[in-house]
Amino acid sequence: MEYEEPKFFHVMQYAAAAAGDVIDMVSGNPDWEPPAALREALREYADRPPADFQYPPSEGLRELREVIAERRGVDPGRVVVTNGTGEANYLAMARALDRDAGDEALLMDPVYPYYPGKTHLLDGTPTLVPTTRDGGLDVDAIREAASEDTALIVLNTPNNPTGAVYDLDAVREVADVAAAVDALVVVDEVYGRFDLSGSFESALTLDDDRVIVTSGFSKSMAITGFRVGYGIFPESHVDDAKTRHMLVNVAGARPSQYAVYHALAETPPEYYAESRELLADRVAAFTDALDAAGAEYSRPEGAFYVLARFDSFPGTMANVKRLVDEAGVAGMPGEAFGTARSDWIRFALVTPRAAEAAERLADYFAEEPAPR
Amino acid sequence: MEYEEPKFFHVMQYAAAAAGDVIDMVSGNPDWEPPAALREALREYADRPPADFQYPPSEGLRELREVIAERRGVDPGRVVVTNGTGEANYLAMARALDRDAGDEALLMDPVYPYYPGKTHLLDGTPTLVPTTRDGGLDVDAIREAASEDTALIVLNTPNNPTGAVYDLDAVREVADVAAAVDALVVVDEVYGRFDLSGSFESALTLDDDRVIVTSGFSKSMAITGFRVGYGIFPESHVDDAKTRHMLVNVAGARPSQYAVYHALAETPPEYYAESRELLADRVAAFTDALDAAGAEYSRPEGAFYVLARFDSFPGTMANVKRLVDEAGVAGMPGEAFGTARSDWIRFALVTPRAAEAAERLADYFAEEPAPR
Repeated sequence: MEYEEPKFFHVMQYAAAAAGDVIDMVSGNPDWEPPAALREALREYADRPPADFQYPPSEGLRELREVIAERRGVDPGRVVVTNGTGEANYLAMARALDRDAGDEALLMDPVYPYYPGKTHLLDGTPTLVPTTRDGGLDVDAIREAASEDTALIVLNTPNNPTGAVYDLDAVREVADVAAAVDALVVVDEVYGRFDLSGSFESALTLDDDRVIVTSGFSKSMAITGFRVGYGIFPESHVDDAKTRHMLVNVAGARPSQYAVYHALAETPPEYYAESRELLADRVAAFTDALDAAGAEYSRPEGAFYVLARFDSFPGTMANVKRLVDEAGVAGMPGEAFGTARSDWIRFALVTPRAAEAAERLADYFAEEPAPR
Repeated sequence: MEYEEPKFFHVMQYAAAAAGDVIDMVSGNPDWEPPAALREALREYADRPPADFQYPPSEGLRELREVIAERRGVDPGRVVVTNGTGEANYLAMARALDRDAGDEALLMDPVYPYYPGKTHLLDGTPTLVPTTRDGGLDVDAIREAASEDTALIVLNTPNNPTGAVYDLDAVREVADVAAAVDALVVVDEVYGRFDLSGSFESALTLDDDRVIVTSGFSKSMAITGFRVGYGIFPESHVDDAKTRHMLVNVAGARPSQYAVYHALAETPPEYYAESRELLADRVAAFTDALDAAGAEYSRPEGAFYVLARFDSFPGTMANVKRLVDEAGVAGMPGEAFGTARSDWIRFALVTPRAAEAAERLADYFAEEPAPR
């Protein structure tokens, strides 16, 4: 297994080293305040007795699992608290691929690059399946791609990078395809709190024993560094996930779990509504400026990102670096997300300067750079 | 992969549910204060701006890696900060077993149960190798067991459960055996701060490109729940470990890393000396009482544990539960640690009531229970 520095680290380092002022729209790190209850709980935790600094239960603090289970309407026994949504996806994908049910993982194109990375780590074979023009599920394409070798189908809704929110009926159809070929469906809902369309419904409502739902608090509480996520596994798969979690990590970090538990229990709905509105305002300002720039873009139904395409300026790493140097805006090359959007560039709206960035892009492309 | 609740959870739950007062000597959770700087850093962290709550570098906060590297006398590029020593062992063992250099892991008997567990998870085959009567390395036995199929040899010094501190020359000989069969040696030094013998030397001093050293702060700072450990990998293996760490966990928890960095940089040597002396006092009081009880035991050279054997009372789960109910002392059955010490019971000295526990054991065995 070769170590490949993820492209987003590469772009962030390039942007940080640039001579001029660069607006960073590379990573999905929220720039807004975490819940007040999270900070308060951390302060309290600092003064807890030594016993509270020792191993939490491997599957997560009991009170945290219970409040997650209550909010998601499932039995607490199905919840495994993980080191971020990333570990939850790893556990879920490992379960799917380690059942002697095949080696293939169907991943939607464009694809979040960790999914093929995890598939390779688990000795699986990723197959990219096209999505619709707006990033929605193409169930026929999934049905066509599925075979006896398919062990896993990974969905992400609201989607990174397209912003698509999947229709629940389409997710149900994918679960039926999975049943036909003995695959499991992993639905990563980490952006579930950032549904701008009002149409998002969790795959948990399908109550399907082939569906594993993963999520976490990195985005909803603006704490990507705390590493608190979870998987909700069907009864027949939860023990496998617990075992792997224990053998890989023993347990997750207790200060983080303690703070997240209190924030989850004590934060009013207004907190989440405010961050969603902040994001919606940024989407509007950014896409208005993209209109002015004559760029093509997909208006996100959810998540943090806008994919944009500029004439004769494909989303290569070289062009992204050119935008850093010449326009003062750093995005992510579309070629990092599979094959479907290699002409596009992804911009993360996690900066108060999103509108300013779009104006810089408009100015830059008004000057008509030489085609690349 | 079947989920087996670890035996130590099982005993802890049994002890917690017992009717009478039970002294818990089951797990290796320190009961003493963490460094003052750790609490102070957590308080400070609670008020940091949102940017400090986002992903740390995947391989760990730069300043933490640098201070670890400085203390251990290695290049920072060789350090990967992990979710506890448990993850560091997982990454190291995975690297050894995933090189197409064989499937066998040689583990010392008695064995810390996570090592065979991780070996199975990684599709390897564990082979238990006997140690000497006092738990020291039997290099001839390792040499005899090693073959072309051996990819990995795992050592743990100071040792859990025997308390043995391995002679550095013996570790060097094990590395030579590893070289002869193309294996890697993982040396878990998490109890390195609890060397009661004064003879412990880190395997890093061997400067051997087949040796991976793992450690962490769970024990030395009394924070098993913070999940901050690290692996120090030879240049040719560090990229593989970084990749796997990133794909499994993305990164470790930043509040924990921030607190540990400050505690590591700011805590005077006296803190570690005091916890070591506390432990040495407990060892003396506990073993004095075991002498009074006529028990056989191994006096630990390091780590937290005393293995004891009582006449006609083998270290089975049933007998351990009997001690909980009838003597009010909870230990770990020796049969949980491989085959070599199945007659013994492990007692963790992480309670101020260690001497009282030994007196309870002395009283109990003075009453001569029926042999089991």
